[in-house]
Amino acid sequence: MQARHTLDDIQHLLTTVLQAPRRWQALAPFADTDGPLAAQVLDEAARFVDSAIAPLNRSGDEEGCRFDAGQVHSPTGFRDAYRAFWQAGWPSLSCAPEHGGQGLPAVLECVLFEWLPGANQGWTMAPGLLHGAYECLKHHASDALQAQYLEKIATGEWLATMCLTEAHAGSDLGLVRTKGVPQPDGSVRVSGSKIFISGGEHDLTDNIIHLVLARLPDAPAGPKGLSLFLVPKMLPHVHQPGALGERNAVVCERIEEKMGLHGSPTCVMRFDDATGWLVGEPHKGLAAMFVMMNAARLHVGLQGIGLLEAAWQKASAYAQERRQMRAPGATEPVSLIHDHPAIRRILHTQRAWIDGGRVLAYHTALQLDVARHHPDASERASAQRWCALVTPVLKAALTDQGFQGASACLQVFGGHGYVREWGVEQIVRDARVSMIYEGTNEIQAIDLLVRKVLADGGQGLSTLLGTLPGAAPSAAASARRHALVEITHTLAIAAQSDPELPYWVADDYLRAVALLLLEWAWGQISAHSHGERWSAPAQAFAQWVLPEFEMRVAILRQRIGQVLEFKPN
Amino acid sequence: MQARHTLDDIQHLLTTVLQAPRRWQALAPFADTDGPLAAQVLDEAARFVDSAIAPLNRSGDEEGCRFDAGQVHSPTGFRDAYRAFWQAGWPSLSCAPEHGGQGLPAVLECVLFEWLPGANQGWTMAPGLLHGAYECLKHHASDALQAQYLEKIATGEWLATMCLTEAHAGSDLGLVRTKGVPQPDGSVRVSGSKIFISGGEHDLTDNIIHLVLARLPDAPAGPKGLSLFLVPKMLPHVHQPGALGERNAVVCERIEEKMGLHGSPTCVMRFDDATGWLVGEPHKGLAAMFVMMNAARLHVGLQGIGLLEAAWQKASAYAQERRQMRAPGATEPVSLIHDHPAIRRILHTQRAWIDGGRVLAYHTALQLDVARHHPDASERASAQRWCALVTPVLKAALTDQGFQGASACLQVFGGHGYVREWGVEQIVRDARVSMIYEGTNEIQAIDLLVRKVLADGGQGLSTLLGTLPGAAPSAAASARRHALVEITHTLAIAAQSDPELPYWVADDYLRAVALLLLEWAWGQISAHSHGERWSAPAQAFAQWVLPEFEMRVAILRQRIGQVLEFKPN
Repeated sequence: MQARHTLDDIQHLLTTVLQAPRRWQALAPFADTDGPLAAQVLDEAARFVDSAIAPLNRSGDEEGCRFDAGQVHSPTGFRDAYRAFWQAGWPSLSCAPEHGGQGLPAVLECVLFEWLPGANQGWTMAPGLLHGAYECLKHHASDALQAQYLEKIATGEWLATMCLTEAHAGSDLGLVRTKGVPQPDGSVRVSGSKIFISGGEHDLTDNIIHLVLARLPDAPAGPKGLSLFLVPKMLPHVHQPGALGERNAVVCERIEEKMGLHGSPTCVMRFDDATGWLVGEPHKGLAAMFVMMNAARLHVGLQGIGLLEAAWQKASAYAQERRQMRAPGATEPVSLIHDHPAIRRILHTQRAWIDGGRVLAYHTALQLDVARHHPDASERASAQRWCALVTPVLKAALTDQGFQGASACLQVFGGHGYVREWGVEQIVRDARVSMIYEGTNEIQAIDLLVRKVLADGGQGLSTLLGTLPGAAPSAAASARRHALVEITHTLAIAAQSDPELPYWVADDYLRAVALLLLEWAWGQISAHSHGERWSAPAQAFAQWVLPEFEMRVAILRQRIGQVLEFKPN
Repeated sequence: MQARHTLDDIQHLLTTVLQAPRRWQALAPFADTDGPLAAQVLDEAARFVDSAIAPLNRSGDEEGCRFDAGQVHSPTGFRDAYRAFWQAGWPSLSCAPEHGGQGLPAVLECVLFEWLPGANQGWTMAPGLLHGAYECLKHHASDALQAQYLEKIATGEWLATMCLTEAHAGSDLGLVRTKGVPQPDGSVRVSGSKIFISGGEHDLTDNIIHLVLARLPDAPAGPKGLSLFLVPKMLPHVHQPGALGERNAVVCERIEEKMGLHGSPTCVMRFDDATGWLVGEPHKGLAAMFVMMNAARLHVGLQGIGLLEAAWQKASAYAQERRQMRAPGATEPVSLIHDHPAIRRILHTQRAWIDGGRVLAYHTALQLDVARHHPDASERASAQRWCALVTPVLKAALTDQGFQGASACLQVFGGHGYVREWGVEQIVRDARVSMIYEGTNEIQAIDLLVRKVLADGGQGLSTLLGTLPGAAPSAAASARRHALVEITHTLAIAAQSDPELPYWVADDYLRAVALLLLEWAWGQISAHSHGERWSAPAQAFAQWVLPEFEMRVAILRQRIGQVLEFKPN
């Protein structure tokens, strides 16, 4: 993917459609960040992504990571690229200036973390958890730990991991068995085995900071007995403050062979009485970790957009050079495949997802900053409601589309899409995992429907749909929003007689919400945009994408109806 | 995949639901093939697939084919497995006894060629084109060529290829440039380069028979100037009849690196004045080749079922051993993931596709034999109509589902699905290509709607839907069939003012037909089946799959409406 090819689009969406600079400048920390400054940052970021990261994508996939006696060797060039990345200050774009960051709005970091996976998802896994680790330590670590680690992580000089999953504990963290035993000096000895640790071991940075979920000896069973520990690969030097000391008792036992992401080592990590320190309160590890996970979910949704844009750029370029068969209505015997309706439909439909998805993701990133920094408590609460409800929708819907849409773009190449040469099959392989990690997409749907929407009887969702910013919706859009509110209401009633019901239809519900949000996003785009560039995907959205809403509604109504029919009165 | 685990299901569908033995025994060539004999054949076939082919699946993927100076080395064990395959007579299951075949009904071969890709799609590519090559030579080759080659191909002692695609000519065979120059001795010198030749070179058999599309010197441009040539890798011995002589001037230049199918060499083949012989009439090569392609398309659809069954078996087994989180309504703190509705929904939905797809594919295979062998011309014509209309639907819908459904099954594994260990990611990679080859799924949709349905103003489709065998449809099913007939009618009218229209909506049309056919199939299954085994997928079909029909109808109506609205009167 070439990030620079997306600059004009993204500037248009941010500035004209979302009026982002005006909005973030209303928040004190970003008052001085004007549009031209943001544009300059993005311009430089695009240049960096295109020149330093994208060129390593295919070689990283083919070479992969090499495991040798506990060491992980990154693909050629990854280490230099990472050094250039942190030395240029990219990891700390939206970190606070007092921790060495640039203090820029979250939405700019989101654009960067949309481009990076589009350029090279394997490489991007390395810094992918930095921002979450930063937020986690900033909010939960002791002053002493912060002094030791926060700036190193903010700046990206050291990388971080999240050590959650164990062989028997994937989606269910309550099953975690890793132990942490407090020591007289205030440290903790951590023992256990963790799997699926992205970047658990590598040669990119001098130190790696593991954030490990484990149990203190007196911990209750289940998820409420988990505590969070910081376990560095290299311990602090005993005598020289700030220097690295001995190697901690953390070892990488092996790395996984995966469908994609070959540039990223997925490690099995063993902690053998490794030295660590408690982060936050005892038994409150999950809450501290969720600060990371919520920050990470929006970024995972952006991976979907970035990878889809990458596949789209390849497919679009191919469609405009490859000639096969006469298109209907054409006079020449052989047409560009771009002139065939089946191909145009694929390309316009994927653009509808990318452009609409960007508006939703960027709007959410702007809301993240409002939730943190707005002086008015009700504004903060409203923004917080948006983020809580929309983040799981974006994580699931955009990563589904990242994979499905990349596969549709592969189809544009015919047989050539299936061979390595054109790079699109790698995108499909790399995109698949984001439907799973940071909470599977099924879990996102349950999070949305059960934990968020039904928890307040649908009030929050109803308010969100009723107060979407911008011009009044069309009559059809308004009817769709009312339909969903009404369905939410009957679903809440039916769920009382059949508690399983929401778990059966959570996916349909999430899709319905996603489509209404996309409809809103396209309303915003269309109100501020002109020309074929925007009208073609707008039409594709209305014609090929939005009709799924009625299907989801039909599925929901049928299933709810079955429950209500059999409800004992 | 374990073929033996599907034996009971398939026997039930063939014997009880489709009454297949009674139907094929009404045809002269199969009068003696009774149910018990067929059951015995399938039982032996399952045993062979499970013991000889399935065990080589993962090693074949990991080892891949090795290219070395024009030679292709198959993965370990492939050659022995292929020898066992042809020596046991499996390739010739439905070939005529006079050519060394077993003379069994096509539907039995279809079951075998559903199991084989489910067990090992990479390996199955090798014999995948045998039957098509047999049909092509049987119908179009001269007596001399038949005497030399037909039995070798019927029995599978020699393998065959289809050499169609060139670098600049993929879906558009009219662009083929390979030349054939007639020689005084009646042979032809063939020169040109072909790509994407599955099994173009390998070490499985002593000879490889290439069927090559090329142009004679006096050929008109475009697809009507193509002739078909038989070009063997090893020429007949000049003095010893039946023995192999010199190597022909056919070389494999390289093999492709692909997303999957690593066990199958996808070759770039160069013909340098290679010796060949015309098959069929000059300039009628495409028609001769289409005999192969139509035979092959049903088999490709079956690949979708086979791979989906393979993914389903893995996911179902995993779901019944993996415990995570408490399922709604459960009393234990941790449930089998099979008890979580999101997982059950995935598994039941994929079964709905597999079971319904099997009924459609097997019914089509039975119709293939009726079209060939029924004494009554109107029965033959009716069966031929079914095959012509339904084959592209099955090819597209079942291969789409093979990929999408395998991906859904991967999701059941969470992060474990993304690593090699469980084998499900290989299925996703292997399944992707069948949406492309034998005519992309977009081309299948155009074939259905433009070349078949609209070519007779929708009469054939209307007749097919009006004469579906079995009990009368439900009122709802009947309404859906009428809706599609009505849409076909308005589509035909609208297409007169906008010839591009059918090309935009061909995919929706194909999906709508596929769903009506599946609804019919599930009606047949439900009428003859009892118990949770069949009722769970039947409900899943009605609840989660069939609602797509209304969405496709809405998309079609909206697009047709736009055209009719703007139609100049």
